[in-house]
Order: sequence, then C-alpha cells, then structure tokens
Amino acid sequence: MKTLADAFEHTLQDIYYAENQIAKSLPNVIEAVTRKELKSDLEEHLQETKGQIKTLEKVFKSIGKKASGEKCDAIEGLIKETEGVISDAKGAAAKNAAIIGCCQAIEHYEIARYGTLREWAKSLGHSEAHDLLTGILDQEKAANHKLTNLAVTMINKT
Amino acid sequence: MKTLADAFEHTLQDIYYAENQIAKSLPNVIEAVTRKELKSDLEEHLQETKGQIKTLEKVFKSIGKKASGEKCDAIEGLIKETEGVISDAKGAAAKNAAIIGCCQAIEHYEIARYGTLREWAKSLGHSEAHDLLTGILDQEKAANHKLTNLAVTMINKT
Repeated sequence: MKTLADAFEHTLQDIYYAENQIAKSLPNVIEAVTRKELKSDLEEHLQETKGQIKTLEKVFKSIGKKASGEKCDAIEGLIKETEGVISDAKGAAAKNAAIIGCCQAIEHYEIARYGTLREWAKSLGHSEAHDLLTGILDQEKAANHKLTNLAVTMINKT
Repeated sequence: MKTLADAFEHTLQDIYYAENQIAKSLPNVIEAVTRKELKSDLEEHLQETKGQIKTLEKVFKSIGKKASGEKCDAIEGLIKETEGVISDAKGAAAKNAAIIGCCQAIEHYEIARYGTLREWAKSLGHSEAHDLLTGILDQEKAANHKLTNLAVTMINKT
C-alpha cells in the first residue's frame, strides 16, 4: 500500500468483506431480539445490506477492479462483541438494549469507513464511486438514526 | 446481564478497557505518522484520552462501583486493524491517510458507545454519570471532526 489509490482499493476490500460478514451475522441478531419493531427494523437493514454489497460491486467495476474481500479485523471484533452480548444477556430489556448498542457500534464503523472512502474517491477523481459510496453512507446514517430513535423512545423505557 | 443497569455497568467496563488500550496504542500511531499537524493532533488526543480515563473513574464512583475494565473484542479488532495499516502502508501520503481513517473508525466506535451509555445513564436516573458521559461524547465528536478536517483539507490533497 504505497499510494492513496492503493489505500482506497484496500479499504474497499475491507468494507466489502465487512458487509458480507454483517449479512451473514444479522439473521442471528434478528433471531435474538424480542421487540417486534427492532426485529422488523433489522430485517429491513439486512435487505439494505444485501443491496449495499451489490452497490460495492458497482464501485469496484467503476474503478476497473474485480470485487473482492479482505479479512477485516475491526468487523470481526465488532461481530464477536455482538455475539458475546447475545449469549450473555438474559432479560429481554437488557438484551434488546445491548443488541441495539452493538448494532449502532457497527453502523458507526461503517459510517466512518464510507465517510473516508467517499472522500478518497473524490480526491482520486472517481466521481461514480464517490456518488455510489455517498448513497451507502446516507443509508448507514439513516439506519443508525432509526436505531437511536428505537433505543431512546422504546427500549430504554421498558 | 439481566437488567439495563447490568448492561450499563458491563458497557462501562468495556469502554474503560477500550480507552486504556487506546492510550497504550496511540504512542505507536503518533510515531508512525509523518504529517506534523496530524502528529500534534494525536498527541493532544492522547492527553485527552488520559483525562477521559479519569472521568470514567468518576462515572464508576458516581454509581457506587469500583472502576474496572473488561476485555472488549471490538477495540481489540479496531486496534489490530490500525496496526496492520501501520505495517502495510509504505508511502507517506497513503500511510497518513490510512491512519487517519483508522483513527476515525476508533472515534466512531467511541461515539457509538458513549451515545448509548449516556442515554442508558439518563434512563437509569444517573444524572451525574449522564453529564460526565455527555462531556466525553462531545470531546470524541470534536476529535473526529478535527480528523475529518485534517483528512479533507490536507492529507487527501497531497
């Protein structure tokens, strides 16, 4: 990794791996939560994640590269933390609240990465990639906002 | 972990561990970056992190608990990712840009956790803890904002 273009490609591979891992782990998270609104919110986010994987494939294509993932230590740690919470939390209120917290930590990881990636895309003159990544970034911000609303208005009050 | 109070205490122990790990790893990150402004920004953030550890000790005290850390898989993964970037990135521009990206991922993790913790503190009626955690949250948001400005205005343009 010597240039900004290398860093861009490497981080794109990281987030492509991360989104695929999130898509694999979300069904277990959906299974574990008990609040109906939270379950349907996460089901919707799973579909959105699958769409983001397709969008990332378009980003790779737009820079003339084949989509590929590279093991991302950060998402592995974030998912491991979520799995720990699922197995440790016993009461419904604690479980739902703690799972929302973990999902928001993952959303924030994605917000950080897409924020960086779309700025790099702009610097590198990849305007199509910039626009596609901005679209995903906006989705992640909206997903995080929905989770905050759920946490504040419902889970914390039970 | 059965109640929201349990989840609060557990997540407080997680972030206390995380802040201590960040304070340990930041000197290596500061050593690795070459941009003067970035180095001084991270040095300032290291001092801020040490202050946040003391503030977290006050949060524990305010709820009648002794400060203690619990291994946090998420921060382990985020720091491992940063260390990987430090060893893989060769050119100065790529290295500085990629390190800023990793630091922002860590900032976002903290923003997510403090956002959750201060809402839980409010729900649990821990007003002193709420105010202390809000103070740290504001610092983390400001630190992230400074890194975004650095990334956008300088690193990406070199």
